[in-house]
Amino acid sequence: MHTIYGMIDSGNCYKPRLLMAKLGESFRHVEVSSRDGATRTAAYLAKNPNGMVPLLELADGRRLAESNAILLYLGEGTRFLPTDRYIRGLVYQWLFFEQYSHEPYIAVRKALLTFPERARDATPERLALTLERGNKALRVMDSYLAENAFFAGDACSVADIALFAYTHTAEKGGFDLSAYPAVSAWLRRVEADPGHVPIEWLP
Amino acid sequence: MHTIYGMIDSGNCYKPRLLMAKLGESFRHVEVSSRDGATRTAAYLAKNPNGMVPLLELADGRRLAESNAILLYLGEGTRFLPTDRYIRGLVYQWLFFEQYSHEPYIAVRKALLTFPERARDATPERLALTLERGNKALRVMDSYLAENAFFAGDACSVADIALFAYTHTAEKGGFDLSAYPAVSAWLRRVEADPGHVPIEWLP
Repeated sequence: MHTIYGMIDSGNCYKPRLLMAKLGESFRHVEVSSRDGATRTAAYLAKNPNGMVPLLELADGRRLAESNAILLYLGEGTRFLPTDRYIRGLVYQWLFFEQYSHEPYIAVRKALLTFPERARDATPERLALTLERGNKALRVMDSYLAENAFFAGDACSVADIALFAYTHTAEKGGFDLSAYPAVSAWLRRVEADPGHVPIEWLP
Repeated sequence: MHTIYGMIDSGNCYKPRLLMAKLGESFRHVEVSSRDGATRTAAYLAKNPNGMVPLLELADGRRLAESNAILLYLGEGTRFLPTDRYIRGLVYQWLFFEQYSHEPYIAVRKALLTFPERARDATPERLALTLERGNKALRVMDSYLAENAFFAGDACSVADIALFAYTHTAEKGGFDLSAYPAVSAWLRRVEADPGHVPIEWLP
């Protein structure tokens, strides 16, 4: 059985949980939080030298880090990872967009506003920058979703799961999703895809 | 024939050029720079709404953004993208590490120090943060490379190409590579892999 080391309220850690729930795969959740030092212990750094969650540990002990890499690994051979070469390219494109242009602003702004230990980092400049860049990411998504039901092909893929994770809680970071009707409609489509579970779900 | 829209001196844009050189694939290079406004014109935004380079345009007009997504797309079926499921997972892991934990510090610090138009962003705080995080990324790479010749499996893959792009110029960003002997030895191994070309090479 797979083990996921992660935080119950982290969007990055929600991604593999949501995919495994949809796939009906059983797994073990081990809570490891970046907010209480647990990701910086010697024991955890021996598992993931980059000190981040989530981390996937296979039954044989091999490990894989990076939430979107875990999605691609677990999604292989399932309906969540298309085999058409170009459509699969779009999956990759949106997964990298998520980690470079979306998460560092939309996820981080929520953390700055809601985690007490991040309050000292919540400078006016940082809040303004994350608001501007997060809204840019939402505009890019909205224009694409105005013409496409999902991010890669005509069905829910790991790209949708990755982008859902922090978009569905973006309002906690001060983003007004009512300004993005195509994004809002897409959130409902992802939630309607079979096997959906909410962020704090555990097996 | 493929077209790559990109900047001749950008590490992200070097990645697909290096891969295509190694594969012996011909392509057309169209210079589009983020430093003179060319990535923000209406014409370019119609091609890539996220306004970034590189961008791959296929002969039939379909397009793909995100440097590491382009590497995975072009690498499919070649020696640079392993087929073993777990080794392929490692390729994904290191590609996301590159975009999340490496490029935003190592590439950005070089830009802050060397591009005149970025000088106003080069605050002491920003230079300190990018130095600390960039060195953390180099430490993670060095410890892995002390036990592994390449990042995924025993041969050069797209993960090595992606991490080579900004690591080989890291000293221009003020990083001392002599402190990372395993990284330095790996840079030489990547350069020795057949078909290597330098960053400003064009077909």
